[in-house]
Amino acid sequence: MKKKGSLLSFRPDIKVIDATIRDGGLVNDFRFTDEFVRQLYAANVQAGVDYMEFGYKASRDIFNESEFGSWKFCNEDDIRNIVGENDTDMKIAVMADVGRCDYRRDIIDRADSAIDLVRIATYINTIPAALRMVEYCHARGYETTINIMAISNAKESEVNEALSLIGQSPADGIYIVDSYGALYMEQIEELADKYLETAEANQKFVGIHAHNNQQLAFANTIAALTRGVSYLDSTVSGMGRGAGNCASEQLLGFLKNPKYDIIPILRFIEKQIVPLKETGVVWGYNIPYLLTGQTNQHPRSAIAATKEKRTDYLNFLLELNDRY
Amino acid sequence: MKKKGSLLSFRPDIKVIDATIRDGGLVNDFRFTDEFVRQLYAANVQAGVDYMEFGYKASRDIFNESEFGSWKFCNEDDIRNIVGENDTDMKIAVMADVGRCDYRRDIIDRADSAIDLVRIATYINTIPAALRMVEYCHARGYETTINIMAISNAKESEVNEALSLIGQSPADGIYIVDSYGALYMEQIEELADKYLETAEANQKFVGIHAHNNQQLAFANTIAALTRGVSYLDSTVSGMGRGAGNCASEQLLGFLKNPKYDIIPILRFIEKQIVPLKETGVVWGYNIPYLLTGQTNQHPRSAIAATKEKRTDYLNFLLELNDRY
Repeated sequence: MKKKGSLLSFRPDIKVIDATIRDGGLVNDFRFTDEFVRQLYAANVQAGVDYMEFGYKASRDIFNESEFGSWKFCNEDDIRNIVGENDTDMKIAVMADVGRCDYRRDIIDRADSAIDLVRIATYINTIPAALRMVEYCHARGYETTINIMAISNAKESEVNEALSLIGQSPADGIYIVDSYGALYMEQIEELADKYLETAEANQKFVGIHAHNNQQLAFANTIAALTRGVSYLDSTVSGMGRGAGNCASEQLLGFLKNPKYDIIPILRFIEKQIVPLKETGVVWGYNIPYLLTGQTNQHPRSAIAATKEKRTDYLNFLLELNDRY
Repeated sequence: MKKKGSLLSFRPDIKVIDATIRDGGLVNDFRFTDEFVRQLYAANVQAGVDYMEFGYKASRDIFNESEFGSWKFCNEDDIRNIVGENDTDMKIAVMADVGRCDYRRDIIDRADSAIDLVRIATYINTIPAALRMVEYCHARGYETTINIMAISNAKESEVNEALSLIGQSPADGIYIVDSYGALYMEQIEELADKYLETAEANQKFVGIHAHNNQQLAFANTIAALTRGVSYLDSTVSGMGRGAGNCASEQLLGFLKNPKYDIIPILRFIEKQIVPLKETGVVWGYNIPYLLTGQTNQHPRSAIAATKEKRTDYLNFLLELNDRY
């Protein structure tokens, strides 16, 4: 495939999805103040963001509600408390994890819901379960995506089979998710071409959710969009698990569509992110995350090393390499 | 042009140039302890780094020696004090700025010098002066490169003319220098193709020196190398002016040539960079640097904002946009 778009024009098919509360919630157990979420909602609307993801639809039977803030569960009332009737151009998204969501109980008809898009997060070996959730949500009127996580660990044959199954499903979109921040632009481009082939044959779109372990989240997002990927995830200041994500202020400052505006995001950072960081909430690139990214591993050991403020990077790498 | 190399093989033409002392010296006025420089030298040798740049050959008539550490001037004795006869496979580089270097006095014959490579830093409008320096250094036996700074501000016609002049010169290499951290991979690739056309027609190589204002230094370095750029600048932990550079630990962890080893660099970070940062020496990505990068401006206002710990990002952007 060829490059799509140029650096001075814009592609109207591009959508920006703010995932600050959902991915950022993994850093602070979803304990955001209502004021934070309300201001983020207002900032995203003003910034021209297309979707705001509020959090997970996690099952209260699996997770203890007292251990998390509201956005782990995304009750309709909690979303309504922020968005009212959401009389804006921005749509509302939530994420539902395969195996962690009681969707038949917790996902109601879209007509009665504040939610527009349900993103189904799955590993490659649980695609059939993910497709059942897609069918359920689609039948209830939602837009849906399938987000195949940890794709850097999947074999080509698995990806091919997954795409073939998803192609026949009612999912509106398919997401490339580099959970480990392990992929380089060349690999993202190859995945993008492959996903787009299935997507375009089936009237679907492709999205990208990148992690910043190797400081490549923004670069990989650009690489994907130049191939034709159109749903671009970002979070304010990159807030997200471990090394975090592509930052909204990077992405909105890059995109040329005049509907996008970096200014409300900068104001939100001043008002809410700077104070949040001062309370000790920590995310973002460091050497342990670089090393889990380079070695294509889950960031959990780097999250622990960051918490312990470890600087014995060499020992840390030796531990990572001792995996067999 | 096509991609050169693959993610599992390696290109023997690739060289890694450590610029920690030179670009990092812009952060601390070149006041490194001898121990720091000696350990860095040892780490680079062990890591398989091909060249280590010690600093600038700045004129003592222009700059006051008492205001800077030794590596602003790179006297032969100071280099010898670290490297002795440099009985290693790693070569020694220095940078000489057009208009700031008394090269006829301070650059001696290579046969009597510890230095192997002189990198001539120039803006695009001082290429003729740079070429005179190249000729001088080449005649004295040095390897030479021309590093055209702030290339994001140059017009295509200027770049074409500069390359045509450099093509006829004895310079061994031509460097793409993204001083403002303003360029995206697509632009780096275009410049790389253009530089390589001149270089390959004249038996020269092309190098890349990237800045991390938009967190694209590593990505742009990869983008350049995949086109055929072979001299890759990095600094330990990205230490360098403002947002800093492509980090050696990123680059060495990416390159597949078994001669390169990230371990000595991780050890050096533990032993020297962590304590250096604790003394309050500051560099690296932040929002003001992102904004000067996005707007293709010199980072000086962001350096000032960082020093003042400003978090009024919106005002900062408005100041940047008020430039006419």
